[in-house]
Amino acid sequence: MDDRIGDFLDDVPVGVLATIRPDGGVRQSTVYFVRDGDRILISTESKRQKARDVERTGRASLCVQGPAKPYPCVTVEGDARIRTQGIGEPTARLIERIAGAPVDEIQTDETLAAVDRVILEITVDRAYGASYLDH
Amino acid sequence: MDDRIGDFLDDVPVGVLATIRPDGGVRQSTVYFVRDGDRILISTESKRQKARDVERTGRASLCVQGPAKPYPCVTVEGDARIRTQGIGEPTARLIERIAGAPVDEIQTDETLAAVDRVILEITVDRAYGASYLDH
Repeated sequence: MDDRIGDFLDDVPVGVLATIRPDGGVRQSTVYFVRDGDRILISTESKRQKARDVERTGRASLCVQGPAKPYPCVTVEGDARIRTQGIGEPTARLIERIAGAPVDEIQTDETLAAVDRVILEITVDRAYGASYLDH
Repeated sequence: MDDRIGDFLDDVPVGVLATIRPDGGVRQSTVYFVRDGDRILISTESKRQKARDVERTGRASLCVQGPAKPYPCVTVEGDARIRTQGIGEPTARLIERIAGAPVDEIQTDETLAAVDRVILEITVDRAYGASYLDH
């Protein structure tokens, strides 16, 4: 991934996730995310429709935009999956990003499974529409 | 449309438009928009892929998020079409929203056609995922 895109994704905590519904239409929602190299990680619940869309289609798209004019933005997309193993560390990073404060304890996969928490992971294979990233 | 959703859409000038590509995947991009009742109006060019997606599928989705925590958001979707007639006034409203200044002159449809400008119009038939709209 281009450094300018990577840096922008690290700066902006939220984006708009898009998946394909069973009827072929688009489902969109605002999500917090963190980046791990060329992967985008999102915390969700396995029962959520976005997770089911990813299980069914194996793809997802994320459009990230900055908060003010000129509204820098980029869209990334790629193969996607629902992870239930080794998710304590990325879940902690996401909680830190949401809460804006460090997390003391990494939860185990078992603890997260008990509350239905999973990680929706996108391995980015395409980035497009990058605009004003230097603003 | 629910007043809380309408007021929120009037406050936030940009959103993430999603359309379906010919291959069935999602295309997303940040766009300025204005609302006219239950319709969402976006200025684009007829040659753009998003316009072609709308011509082909007749549908579009817009996810709008506020600029700061707790990131209020809503997604609206509906039948969509590309308009070339009577587009001077909405185009002027969009230019005003982008420029943040009043527009003196309403361009004619012929003038806009000469520069390939069209209006992508979504008639909202569903709103979902509304969160934190009162923030």
